[in-house]
Parts: sequence; structure tokens; C-alpha cells
Amino acid sequence: MNPLGRHILAEFYDCAPGILNDPDAIEREMNEAAAVSGATIVQSVFHMFSPHGVSGVVVVAESHLAVHTWPEFGYAAVDYFTCGEVDTESAIRHLKDKFGAERVTFRVVERGVLSANGGGVGVLVGPESGEELV
Amino acid sequence: MNPLGRHILAEFYDCAPGILNDPDAIEREMNEAAAVSGATIVQSVFHMFSPHGVSGVVVVAESHLAVHTWPEFGYAAVDYFTCGEVDTESAIRHLKDKFGAERVTFRVVERGVLSANGGGVGVLVGPESGEELV
Repeated sequence: MNPLGRHILAEFYDCAPGILNDPDAIEREMNEAAAVSGATIVQSVFHMFSPHGVSGVVVVAESHLAVHTWPEFGYAAVDYFTCGEVDTESAIRHLKDKFGAERVTFRVVERGVLSANGGGVGVLVGPESGEELV
Repeated sequence: MNPLGRHILAEFYDCAPGILNDPDAIEREMNEAAAVSGATIVQSVFHMFSPHGVSGVVVVAESHLAVHTWPEFGYAAVDYFTCGEVDTESAIRHLKDKFGAERVTFRVVERGVLSANGGGVGVLVGPESGEELV
């Protein structure tokens, strides 16, 4: 069983004051996180929420790295979708350091799980999880 | 318990041939999906994989809507992160229709779960799930 993509959902708690409300710093560190993980950056888009918080995505050749911050709770939600040889853990560690997060948790969700059939050709196992949309 | 964000992970299986390899059509339908859900579009970024497949993100004021497609498997992975009054189901149904998907499954992941403390002020419950990064 081999997934087409791996989707990392990471929660950053008790971050340093200031950075979560600084769109330039968030964009810089998100791009740096994509770079240290070995991904190829295509483009990044960031914007401020009103009245506070930053939201943005780095689109990489191997998929995307997104962040949404709540400075008032010292909390940031990051997700990193990859479908290539990308070191996602180095990206999460980079952001933990730069956000000054006291605690970080993460989940790995496999997307598009393949199973080899008799001919050795990958076929999708799914729908393997989640609810069915009816 | 009230999450700061809701993250929908949806799998689209057995999609119609053609559209999953058409970046213009994918970008148009992803923007339309964001619009029908009531989100405010900030910007969208789409690109082709090599040799095939489309990847892209619609950044919305309320967060992001991303897609990655594997035409060779008739499969598309969509995720919709929201932190506002957005009708995510209408977006997923729009894409099911336009992608011609035979089957769609989805999961809802709560991000940044709050609990009211004694003073009625929301505090983060987390880390409530996932592994701890050590």
C-alpha cells in the first residue's frame, strides 16, 4: 500500500508573541521551510486577516504548504501536502523554531492509497476512509 | 468545544477523463467552488505537474481550497480549510459534479479546539490529537 500523497497536519501552540501577526515574517519562514525540506517553490500568496492573523500558502512543485495563524491564542495551523521526496519533518522543525512554539503536534494523512494488483500496476484502494458523500 | 478552523479532506475517485489534466478548467471550477460556498477569493495559483496532473490553491479570506490531481488514476485530492461561515459541502458537491467523480469521500478535521474556561473566555484545549514533535 503506497499513497499518492502524504498530508501532514501540524498544530503549533504557545508561539512567540509578534510573529503570528507579521505577514512578512510568516511568508519568509514558510518559504524557508519549503526550501529546507527540499521542495521546489512555485509561488507564495499571503495575506492578513482582519483584524489580526495571517493566512497563506506556498505552492511547491510537489504540492503545497499552508498556514493560518491566530495570534490571540498563540496558535498556528500548518498543513503540508506532498507527493514527492520531501523532508516534511525538517519543515515543521524549522517553523517550530521560528514561531517559537512551545508544543507542536502533527498527524499524517495518506491521500489516494494504492495497492498493486495482479499485474503489478498500482490501483486505488479507496474509498478507504472518511464518509461517503451521498 | 469549538474549533478555530475546520479542515475538510476530500477524495474524488473515478473522475471523468480529461478535466484532471486541464489546468484552466480545474482553476475555473475551484474558483467557482469557492464562490458557491460563499467564500471571498483573494487569489488563485495553479500549475501543471510534469508529465501530467494539476496542482493549485485558491486562497480565500476564510483560508484556502487546494487540489492535486492524478489523471492516470482518475483521482483528485481536495482540502478546504475554513474558519468562517462557509458552506464547504456545496463546494465539494460542485467539484464532484464538474470532475464527474463516481465516488467522493471526506473527513472533517477540527483544528485548534477551544474550550470555554471559568470566565467564559475560549482557551485552547490542545494538543488534543496527533503525535507530539519531540
